[in-house]
Amino acid sequence: MTDYIESLQRLSEQFSKLQGVGRKSAMRMAFSLIEFDDESAQEFAQAIIDAKRMIHRCPLCGNLTDKDECYVCSDLSRDTSIICVVEDVKALMSIEKVREYKGVYHVLHGAISPVNGITPDKIRIKELIERVGSGDVNEVIVATNPTQDGEVTAMYISKYLKPLGVKVTRLAYGIPVGSDLEYADEITLGRAIEGRRDV
Amino acid sequence: MTDYIESLQRLSEQFSKLQGVGRKSAMRMAFSLIEFDDESAQEFAQAIIDAKRMIHRCPLCGNLTDKDECYVCSDLSRDTSIICVVEDVKALMSIEKVREYKGVYHVLHGAISPVNGITPDKIRIKELIERVGSGDVNEVIVATNPTQDGEVTAMYISKYLKPLGVKVTRLAYGIPVGSDLEYADEITLGRAIEGRRDV
Repeated sequence: MTDYIESLQRLSEQFSKLQGVGRKSAMRMAFSLIEFDDESAQEFAQAIIDAKRMIHRCPLCGNLTDKDECYVCSDLSRDTSIICVVEDVKALMSIEKVREYKGVYHVLHGAISPVNGITPDKIRIKELIERVGSGDVNEVIVATNPTQDGEVTAMYISKYLKPLGVKVTRLAYGIPVGSDLEYADEITLGRAIEGRRDV
Repeated sequence: MTDYIESLQRLSEQFSKLQGVGRKSAMRMAFSLIEFDDESAQEFAQAIIDAKRMIHRCPLCGNLTDKDECYVCSDLSRDTSIICVVEDVKALMSIEKVREYKGVYHVLHGAISPVNGITPDKIRIKELIERVGSGDVNEVIVATNPTQDGEVTAMYISKYLKPLGVKVTRLAYGIPVGSDLEYADEITLGRAIEGRRDV
């Protein structure tokens, strides 16, 4: 149907290229955009171009930024002796939301995944080892995802960092706060028992 | 957090202006777009500008098109004596997918909704009446949505078209094919009983 309107079809295809957007949602978004006035559509297009032009990776930690350094690295109150390693910027943002962590970050931009052909040299592990080797780093918190790829990545990083005399830690596994034991999966529950603490 | 990256924030706001896109999804889309290469991002921006520039309403029926007339109106095999009235282009597309209807359309671009300040003059009802009055139209199928606003619109249209000597029909209400009676709501079920047919 919309094949008849080529430019609408093209716009819809662009939306469907975004992660997590299916064909139906993409078409709905294209329709919605057609309803924008000319100025708003122009603003949208400009926002894409601007974001793409201005945003780049922080040369220190790999976080996204539109400045020379990201806002974490350029914040002098942050403790540069603790580095939290995350797979992506979304994980960094999640940790920042807690407002408890005062160290800095290292964004890997991926996780080791032999199945998907992602070898250690494809993500920012070398940069991490160099960074730890050349600075006054006391602790590296490996906050990769609790998935198989995340685990493999954590093990790999740990193997290379420990010889440098740095403390390497991993986030605690356990029952999510506010959840019900009945609904916890067995692996999580097993890890929670394993990691039990004195009260 | 992302407030620190102004251009990312701005891009995310643009996505959240699209109908049905919430703040979290918008941010995820903005992140996804940042991962595009420069050329793809440029293509995306261009697709927005092109679609907005080229797509307009068909002067006859109100459907979207990038030509002088929409593909339905310019198709000589369609029966112009039957007009199907829909609220929006998405409804038109749904009917086209059935591949059974061979008449033409009239897109109202809305429905009468006193609560939302949408009076009959705000949607394309006048154009419909003029069209029916000036052409060889035998039947108008009012396919507005089965909602209160859709019903009010259908009644209003019917009131003005019937004096013109044209047959005005409405889509049948009933149980959706393939569904289970147990899950049908009472109003739909009531309408299905009311509209029962001989077998």
